[in-house]
Amino acid sequence: MQNSQLLTRNSQLTLYALPGIPDVRAGDDVAQLIIDALARAQLALADGDVVVVTHKIVSKAEGCAVKLADVAPSPEAQALAAATDKDPRLVEVILRGSRGVVRQREGTLIMETRHGWICANAGVDRSNVSGPEGDVALTLPVDPDASARRIRERLMAATGADVAVIITDTHGRAWRLGTVNVALGVAGMLPIADLRGKPDMFGYTLRVTTVARADELAAAAGLVTGQAAEGLPVVLIRGADYPRGDGRATDMQRPIEKDLFR
Amino acid sequence: MQNSQLLTRNSQLTLYALPGIPDVRAGDDVAQLIIDALARAQLALADGDVVVVTHKIVSKAEGCAVKLADVAPSPEAQALAAATDKDPRLVEVILRGSRGVVRQREGTLIMETRHGWICANAGVDRSNVSGPEGDVALTLPVDPDASARRIRERLMAATGADVAVIITDTHGRAWRLGTVNVALGVAGMLPIADLRGKPDMFGYTLRVTTVARADELAAAAGLVTGQAAEGLPVVLIRGADYPRGDGRATDMQRPIEKDLFR
Repeated sequence: MQNSQLLTRNSQLTLYALPGIPDVRAGDDVAQLIIDALARAQLALADGDVVVVTHKIVSKAEGCAVKLADVAPSPEAQALAAATDKDPRLVEVILRGSRGVVRQREGTLIMETRHGWICANAGVDRSNVSGPEGDVALTLPVDPDASARRIRERLMAATGADVAVIITDTHGRAWRLGTVNVALGVAGMLPIADLRGKPDMFGYTLRVTTVARADELAAAAGLVTGQAAEGLPVVLIRGADYPRGDGRATDMQRPIEKDLFR
Repeated sequence: MQNSQLLTRNSQLTLYALPGIPDVRAGDDVAQLIIDALARAQLALADGDVVVVTHKIVSKAEGCAVKLADVAPSPEAQALAAATDKDPRLVEVILRGSRGVVRQREGTLIMETRHGWICANAGVDRSNVSGPEGDVALTLPVDPDASARRIRERLMAATGADVAVIITDTHGRAWRLGTVNVALGVAGMLPIADLRGKPDMFGYTLRVTTVARADELAAAAGLVTGQAAEGLPVVLIRGADYPRGDGRATDMQRPIEKDLFR
């Protein structure tokens, strides 16, 4: 895939949060909502644009909302809930979406998700989900890379533009407070820009060889994505330098044998 | 400081990498170089702008380059260098800038820096440093928050604009491959946007309560900062929503008692 990298350099970059994306429900067509929002914002997609989508609207559209009243916690979930002072039904949903517990402490569950991401509560969230069915937990999409590919195909078919799509979540970090937006799914790009072997301006070979471009794009989108009442779940990034290709966000997962902190 | 937060919402954000910053040498005036670069780019600083500066030019200006030929490795540095297959003189420089080793493995040294950051090689870098004096290591600025404050004061005195300044480095992450740009120093802002207690669009209190705004801004700047031969170490971000105040990047350091991964 390295041969397909297109490392054009740009010195200006613009992010637009698309207004007017409505509350998303199961079965909704996220790609069409984005196409409609672009039209309302009078923005035409262009080759090289990146469309960054908060996973919440993808999860909702894909029916990832779980009614907690319907969840029967397993004995394992009940024990873990008691140890961490969490709702056993929520812990049951977290366990179903996980390969295992990475760290636990009162109030905190750091999990490895089924996809291989290390994050709090396996990305399961009670925020921004509601409805007449009562308390609801929202899980991550089953395959965020596949979700990104489906959205990208629809956007390209509708507009003809060769764009990248990124699906994001907000993650905490091991040693830094505060969350940042990261990429859980990508399409039309490689998540990592490989600078190996490139000389720097003094002819040294670069020590920093790989840059998590998809995560930088996700973090940038986080600057204009309303976390709260505003609700701006889709961001268009224009002018970004990223390696094109058929990559997966999971390409960014550090292999367990190179993990010093698990 | 929370009262001084200004959480204006913007839906468009623009980043400009400033061209023409020359190679920086010890004693150079980084603030003046930025003022000159802004003038060349015909950009006038405005209230709320964020100026993001790669630490390398700050370190060089502050004389943080260490001539390796002059470094006498201690027995501790020699032992650690042997265990990790690194240059003993480089390891000596790393140890001088560190509180201690967090993880070590052949080829890898994860350190806690004197400032309290967890990162590879305590941020000491051989890349992008050269000169007639031979092999040189570049350390982090002694106090990046103070460096950011000095640059901010100069920019505000010269332009009258109330701007924030961020000094960055590229860090690896525990579980994700590829580096991202992060904030090591800030001025004129709080690094973390505190959303605690804010209701989301359905009235839930937000689970994600604090956002590492300084790191999101740093990561965004990383998209237009040339890592390699281009050399674009200063980025102007216009239209960002960040909490103003007299914060420190070190406010983002997770206290050891809340650290599950050290």
